[in-house]
Amino acid sequence: MKDDPVDTNPLHYSVVFENDRVRVLEYLDASGDKTTPHEHPDSVMYTLSNFRRRLHSADGHRDVELSAGKAMWLPAQRHSGENIGTTPTHVIFVELKDDLEDAQAGSWIGPA
Amino acid sequence: MKDDPVDTNPLHYSVVFENDRVRVLEYLDASGDKTTPHEHPDSVMYTLSNFRRRLHSADGHRDVELSAGKAMWLPAQRHSGENIGTTPTHVIFVELKDDLEDAQAGSWIGPA
Repeated sequence: MKDDPVDTNPLHYSVVFENDRVRVLEYLDASGDKTTPHEHPDSVMYTLSNFRRRLHSADGHRDVELSAGKAMWLPAQRHSGENIGTTPTHVIFVELKDDLEDAQAGSWIGPA
Repeated sequence: MKDDPVDTNPLHYSVVFENDRVRVLEYLDASGDKTTPHEHPDSVMYTLSNFRRRLHSADGHRDVELSAGKAMWLPAQRHSGENIGTTPTHVIFVELKDDLEDAQAGSWIGPA
């Protein structure tokens, strides 16, 4: 993955679990913090804090306000973010790896 | 899925998000609560409380003690559980649906 957030924004993103099916990231920031552009694969987000953010993408930006304890789908996307609220943003991302592609590549038998 | 926990133990398990790739369950109980046997597909667990549980499976039982804020892998399994601690168990499960099987079935072209 190009611009993996763990590489581009290591102060905010950390890997808390990984196997061949998923990778789980924890994101934690403070009011006013910004991230640089990075990419997410299809992921489940679970919010651990109330927060308000401005998300910038190639199309422009949008503001989101979320409360703690919400599960939602984050389709694969490239963006950067900005904490425009007064509270930390604390989120868990469960990233889905592409099982189909990996499984097919792994099971293909024939000349190399 | 046989013995879906949402059906077998609706007081403890609820669906908080679902699409074609994942289903997200929230589990919440109180000290002393028990579940009846149910099945989990391959899932990511994320703990929201400190808790102590006894898990019963066909092979016997094992006790687990976990703290809040841990992500871990729950391989597909059938079990029942018992809160043997003094605190509620609060956990999020991100269940993975079988993309490979669905995708192959969906993309297969030929006589029915």
